[in-house]
Amino acid sequence: MLIVMEKTATPEQIENVVSIIEQKGYTPRPIPGGERVAIGVLRNKGPVDAALFLGIPGVKDTVPITRPYKLVSRETQPEDTIVTVGDVAIGNGRLTLMAGPCAIESELQALTIAEKVKAAGAHIFRGGAFKPRTSPYAFQGMGEEGLKIMARVREVTGMPIVTEVMDDQTFDLVEAYADIIQIGTRNMQNFSLLKRAGRSRKPIFLKRGLAATIDEWLMAAEYILEGGNTQVILCERGVRTFVNHSRNTLDVSAVPVVRKESHLPIIIDPSHAGGRRDQVIPLSRAAVAVGAHGLMVEVHHEPDKAMSDGAQSLYPEQFVSLCRQVDAIFRILQNGTDAI
Amino acid sequence: MLIVMEKTATPEQIENVVSIIEQKGYTPRPIPGGERVAIGVLRNKGPVDAALFLGIPGVKDTVPITRPYKLVSRETQPEDTIVTVGDVAIGNGRLTLMAGPCAIESELQALTIAEKVKAAGAHIFRGGAFKPRTSPYAFQGMGEEGLKIMARVREVTGMPIVTEVMDDQTFDLVEAYADIIQIGTRNMQNFSLLKRAGRSRKPIFLKRGLAATIDEWLMAAEYILEGGNTQVILCERGVRTFVNHSRNTLDVSAVPVVRKESHLPIIIDPSHAGGRRDQVIPLSRAAVAVGAHGLMVEVHHEPDKAMSDGAQSLYPEQFVSLCRQVDAIFRILQNGTDAI
Amino acid sequence: MLIVMEKTATPEQIENVVSIIEQKGYTPRPIPGGERVAIGVLRNKGPVDAALFLGIPGVKDTVPITRPYKLVSRETQPEDTIVTVGDVAIGNGRLTLMAGPCAIESELQALTIAEKVKAAGAHIFRGGAFKPRTSPYAFQGMGEEGLKIMARVREVTGMPIVTEVMDDQTFDLVEAYADIIQIGTRNMQNFSLLKRAGRSRKPIFLKRGLAATIDEWLMAAEYILEGGNTQVILCERGVRTFVNHSRNTLDVSAVPVVRKESHLPIIIDPSHAGGRRDQVIPLSRAAVAVGAHGLMVEVHHEPDKAMSDGAQSLYPEQFVSLCRQVDAIFRILQNGTDAI
Amino acid sequence: MLIVMEKTATPEQIENVVSIIEQKGYTPRPIPGGERVAIGVLRNKGPVDAALFLGIPGVKDTVPITRPYKLVSRETQPEDTIVTVGDVAIGNGRLTLMAGPCAIESELQALTIAEKVKAAGAHIFRGGAFKPRTSPYAFQGMGEEGLKIMARVREVTGMPIVTEVMDDQTFDLVEAYADIIQIGTRNMQNFSLLKRAGRSRKPIFLKRGLAATIDEWLMAAEYILEGGNTQVILCERGVRTFVNHSRNTLDVSAVPVVRKESHLPIIIDPSHAGGRRDQVIPLSRAAVAVGAHGLMVEVHHEPDKAMSDGAQSLYPEQFVSLCRQVDAIFRILQNGTDAI
Repeated sequence: MLIVMEKTATPEQIENVVSIIEQKGYTPRPIPGGERVAIGVLRNKGPVDAALFLGIPGVKDTVPITRPYKLVSRETQPEDTIVTVGDVAIGNGRLTLMAGPCAIESELQALTIAEKVKAAGAHIFRGGAFKPRTSPYAFQGMGEEGLKIMARVREVTGMPIVTEVMDDQTFDLVEAYADIIQIGTRNMQNFSLLKRAGRSRKPIFLKRGLAATIDEWLMAAEYILEGGNTQVILCERGVRTFVNHSRNTLDVSAVPVVRKESHLPIIIDPSHAGGRRDQVIPLSRAAVAVGAHGLMVEVHHEPDKAMSDGAQSLYPEQFVSLCRQVDAIFRILQNGTDAI
Repeated sequence: MLIVMEKTATPEQIENVVSIIEQKGYTPRPIPGGERVAIGVLRNKGPVDAALFLGIPGVKDTVPITRPYKLVSRETQPEDTIVTVGDVAIGNGRLTLMAGPCAIESELQALTIAEKVKAAGAHIFRGGAFKPRTSPYAFQGMGEEGLKIMARVREVTGMPIVTEVMDDQTFDLVEAYADIIQIGTRNMQNFSLLKRAGRSRKPIFLKRGLAATIDEWLMAAEYILEGGNTQVILCERGVRTFVNHSRNTLDVSAVPVVRKESHLPIIIDPSHAGGRRDQVIPLSRAAVAVGAHGLMVEVHHEPDKAMSDGAQSLYPEQFVSLCRQVDAIFRILQNGTDAI
Repeated sequence: MLIVMEKTATPEQIENVVSIIEQKGYTPRPIPGGERVAIGVLRNKGPVDAALFLGIPGVKDTVPITRPYKLVSRETQPEDTIVTVGDVAIGNGRLTLMAGPCAIESELQALTIAEKVKAAGAHIFRGGAFKPRTSPYAFQGMGEEGLKIMARVREVTGMPIVTEVMDDQTFDLVEAYADIIQIGTRNMQNFSLLKRAGRSRKPIFLKRGLAATIDEWLMAAEYILEGGNTQVILCERGVRTFVNHSRNTLDVSAVPVVRKESHLPIIIDPSHAGGRRDQVIPLSRAAVAVGAHGLMVEVHHEPDKAMSDGAQSLYPEQFVSLCRQVDAIFRILQNGTDAI
Repeated sequence: MLIVMEKTATPEQIENVVSIIEQKGYTPRPIPGGERVAIGVLRNKGPVDAALFLGIPGVKDTVPITRPYKLVSRETQPEDTIVTVGDVAIGNGRLTLMAGPCAIESELQALTIAEKVKAAGAHIFRGGAFKPRTSPYAFQGMGEEGLKIMARVREVTGMPIVTEVMDDQTFDLVEAYADIIQIGTRNMQNFSLLKRAGRSRKPIFLKRGLAATIDEWLMAAEYILEGGNTQVILCERGVRTFVNHSRNTLDVSAVPVVRKESHLPIIIDPSHAGGRRDQVIPLSRAAVAVGAHGLMVEVHHEPDKAMSDGAQSLYPEQFVSLCRQVDAIFRILQNGTDAI
C-alpha cells in the first residue's frame, strides 16, 4: 500500500504516519516527490487495511498496490488448474459444454432434454433442483426429487451433472448427488456456504456476483481453496449495469483478465447474461472467441411451458446450431492464436 | 402484463398469443393501436412470467405492469408498520439512531463505545459478532463471545442490540441474544436465510443488496413477511455504481420511493455508503432530510486501532455533533412538511 | 403508452385521465383488469410524453410501449444499409477493418503505420487530427496538418480515411478531407453537431456514448437521418460500469440488438473498450463472433512513444495476428449460421 | 505515478523501466518491497501517461497518485470561489435558489412562473431557450425569442437569469442575454464549447455528465479556468446507474468531495436527478443538508401542459413549501456544524 500525504502535510504528520506503520509491524518507506510525500508500506503477508490510515491528519489517500488473493493467483500457481469429473476435463485445452433446463420439472422432461443436448455435443448436464427465486411465490424447484432425476439422467446418458446448492442445510444432500456443485450469483459472498464448499470433495462451480469485481470474485474462490478444495470453476454470467436491452451485461473482458490473474478455468453462461433467447447464440460465439474454457447454456424442448426462465432457453435445434458454431470458433483459437 | 406485437404480426400470430394466454388461465385483452397490436394479460394473482411469451412468433416485447410484491405493499397495508423493541419504536414518528462499532472486539471496547453513543443520543447499540469479510484472511468476528458482550452492553446501558446473522446454523444463537437481527447486503437474496427469518419472532433489519432494485429488495422482505414475521426494517446502505469517490453511492431517492410503495420503516447506513469518515456526517444529514426513519452509524473510540472498517468509523465526539445536527433537521421535517 | 392507475383510483380519476388523453388528440382505451385499471394511449405519430400523466391524481405509473425512433428502425427499412466509400463497402456481408494510430503525429508515423496495417488486411485508415482530451494540458492533435497527412496516406495507400470531428467550426474542414467523419463518444448527444452531420454528404461514424442506452444512441442517429444523411455507421466502444479491470465494459449484446432493431451497420472498437493492449485481440475475436460488421483498432509501431492512448495500441505484428484470427472467425459466421 | 512490477520481474526489466522514466525527463525512485518492486515516478508538472509503461515487459500495473487538475484544486486556491451576478452571490455562505420552467414557452408563461418563484424566495430565474432533446421530433426551444423573454423577466423581476448554451454558433447570442451560461450534461466534455466558455466574461454553470467521475468533471472545469474564466459553478444532477426508480441517481456524496477537492461552488438539480415530481422536495432537502451551495429547481404553473419535462416540474405552491423547508435546514447547517 502507498499512503499519499497532502501537499501541506507537516514533517510531524509524516513522522506520525511512519510510526503508526512501524507499530503495526510493517516497514515504512517514505518517497519524497516534487509536490508531496508518499509513504510505501512494505509488509510480510496479507493486505494492509486502508482504515488504519484514512482520516489521520495529513493523509490524503491510500493506494492499494498488490492483489489481495494468494492461492487462486497465477503468481502462486503458474500452470492451469484442470478440473476432472468422470471422463470430462475442464480447462484442459478442450471446450466444455454444459447444457440442460433451468429447472428439473420431471424425469421425462430431464431425460428428453438430456438426450438432445448430449446428441448435440454437450459434455455435462445442468439442471436446478433447488432454485433461488426473487419471488417467494415462484416455483422453488423439486428439491431432492429433482436430484434423483438428475442422477437418473447421469445413469442413462453417462453425462456428469452440475446443480446448484443454496444453503448449508442441503449441502450434504446436493453433494451426495452432484458431480459439480454450483454456487449461484446471489450466494457468491455467502461466506458460510463458501467455507462449506472448501470442505467438499466435489468441484465447485462459482458464479460471479451481479456487482462483483474480479478481485471480490477471486477472493470468494480463495475462501474455497483456503478451505482445502482446489477444484473451482469460475463462471461469468453478466453483471448489472444501466444497460436495459439485455438482462445483464456480459463482461467478456473478464475472461482474459481472469486467465491472466488466476489458474482457475472460466466458463461463460450466455443464457443468464442475455436473458432473451435471441441473444444466446451470438453471446455464446463471443464467449468462446474471447477465450472461455466452456459454456453453460439453458435448453428446453418446450420453453413456453418451462417452469422458470423459459424466455432464455434455447430450443434443442438451436443448441445443435450453437454447438456447431462454437466448435468451429474454438478450433480456430486452438490453431491460430499461438502468435499472440 | 402487456404483450407488444411486431408491426408486421399476422392475425394468426395474434390469435396464437391470445390462445396461449387462455391456456395459462389468464384473460387476454387485445388492444388494437395505430401501428401495432398490444395484448393485455388480466390475471387473478401473482406475476405473469415474461418467459411464456418472449420468443413466440410475432411478439416484440413484454411489459410488466403491476408490482410483484403483495404483503409489503402499501396497497395491502396503508398504515405504517411500527417496529417495537423494548422502549424503542422504529417508524413511529421519531428518529431512531443505531450506533456502535463495526465489530465487537472486547467488553471494554464495546462498553466504552456504547456509553459514549448512548450519552450522545443513540437508542440502539449495533455491533458485529459474526462478520462477513471479503477476504478469508481478515478478522471474522468474535462469534458467540461477541454476542455475550453485546448482551452485557444491553444489561449495562439498557439499549436494545442489533447484530448480523450470517447463516442458518448460527441463526438460533443470534436470535437468542439479539433484539434485532440484521441480514447483510451480501445475503439480501440468501433465500434460505430469508425463510428462516420469516419464522423468527425477532424483528429483521434487511440491508439492500449492492445491485438490488427496489423491487428485488421488497421481494426479499416479502419472503420474510410471507413466512409470518411482519417486523421488518429496511436499510439503504449505498449501491454499486461507476462512482469511485465514495465506497458506494447512497441512493437517497430510495427513501421517498420505499415510503410510497411500502409500509415498512427505512433506515440509512451512511457509514457503509460513504466508506470514509469525512462523508458520514454530510450523508447522515442528507439521510434524515430525505425522510429516513433513522440511521445506523459506525462509531469507534480508537478507529485507527479498529479490527475492521475503522476508516469509516466516527470518533465519539463526531457522533455527538452528528446527533445534534440530525435532530435539528428531523424536527424541521416534523413541523414543516405538512404542506407537501 | 400505457397509463397504470392506482388500485384505489376512483371512476372520476379514471374519467379525468381519459379526457386529458382526448384533449391531447390521442385516443384513450381503458383496460379494466382484475386489480386495477390501465389506460392505453393510441396515437398517430411520435412518442407521448409521460410528463403529461405522471403526477395526475390516481395515476401510478406510465409505461412506454413503442420505440421512439423511426428512420433508423428496421420496421421502416427492412433491408440493411450498406455504406460505400471508394472500393470499400461496410455492411455488405464482408468484414471491414479500420486501423491506425490514435493520433496523427507526423507523416512518417502515419505512413509507416498505414502501410503496415494495409499489408495486414486493413481496409480503412483511422487517425485523429482533432483529439478530445480529458485534460486541457494533454496533446490536442495536429489539426489541419494532421488532416493533410491523412490525405497523403490515402494518396499513397489507396485506403479511405476516417477521422473525428469535434465541432461545427471545423466540420467543413474535416469534411473536405475525410472519407468518413467520426462523431466521438463525448459528442454522441451534441445535437448541433448531429444536425450538421445530417447535412453532410459524407458517411458518419457515430460512437455510442459512455452511458447511452441503445434507444438514445439510435435517436442520435435519427437526428442525422432526419437531416437527410442516410449513411451512418454505428460504433460500440464500451460503456461505463462499476467494472474496473477494463477501461470500459464492452457491451457485446448491443450487436444482436442493434442488428435486429436497425438497418444500420455496427462496428466495434475493442481498443477503447479494453483500454489495455492485452485485451484488444480477445475482444476483437468476441466482436466479430457476436456479429459486428467490422472493427476499428488502434495500432502504433512505437506505442511507448505514442502521444496518446499508447497503452491500448497494438504493435503491427499483433495486428497481423488479429486480422488472421478474426478473418477465420468471420468466415465461420458466413458459412455456419444459416440455421440460426 | 507508481509502476508496480511483476513478482517475477528480472533486474534487467526493472533497469529498463528506470531508464525509460529517465528518458522521459522524470526521476525514477525504485521501492524494493517484500514480494515485488515498485518504482515511483517523480515529476515536475502534469500527469504521467500510463500508456508509457503498461505493456512493457515486467510491468504489472500503474497506479496514479496525484490528481490531474490544478487550477480548480483547493490545493492551488484554498479559499472558496464566490460567483457574483447582480445582487446575488453564489458560494458566499448563503443558499442560492434558482428556479423556473424547463423551457421558455411564452412571455406570459415565463413571467407568471418568475413572479411566483421570486415571491417564494428564488434568487435566479432559470429557463431554456435552446433545448437539447433526445428526439429530433421533440420541441427544441424558442431560440432567441426565448432569450428575449428571459431578458424581459429580468427587467420585470430584477432576477438574474441562467440559460443553456448548446454550441459555439449561438454562444455569442446566449452570452449577450444571460447572466449565467449553462453547459448541459451532454456537453460536459464538449471541449470546443468549454474552450469558448473559458473566453467568456460571464459565469459558467457546468453540469456533471451522466457518467462522469469527479476527476473528469473537475477537468472539464479546468478547461474553463485554464481559458481565463474563473467564474465556474458546478452542478450535480444525478448520474446513470442500474437504479430505475428515479430517472438518475443523485450522487449526494459528490458535494462533500467536491467541496474538499475544489474551491468552486456546487449546486444540486433535484429535478433532473429524480425525474418525477414526488421526489423533488425530498431530494432538495437532502441536497441542502449534505452541504450544497444552492439548488436549481424546475417549476411550472401548469406542468401537465408544459412542452418539456412537465413530469418533474413542481407546482408553484410546492416550490413555496420547498423554500421554507430548505431554508430551515440551511440555517441549521450555518449554526450547527461548527463542531464538525
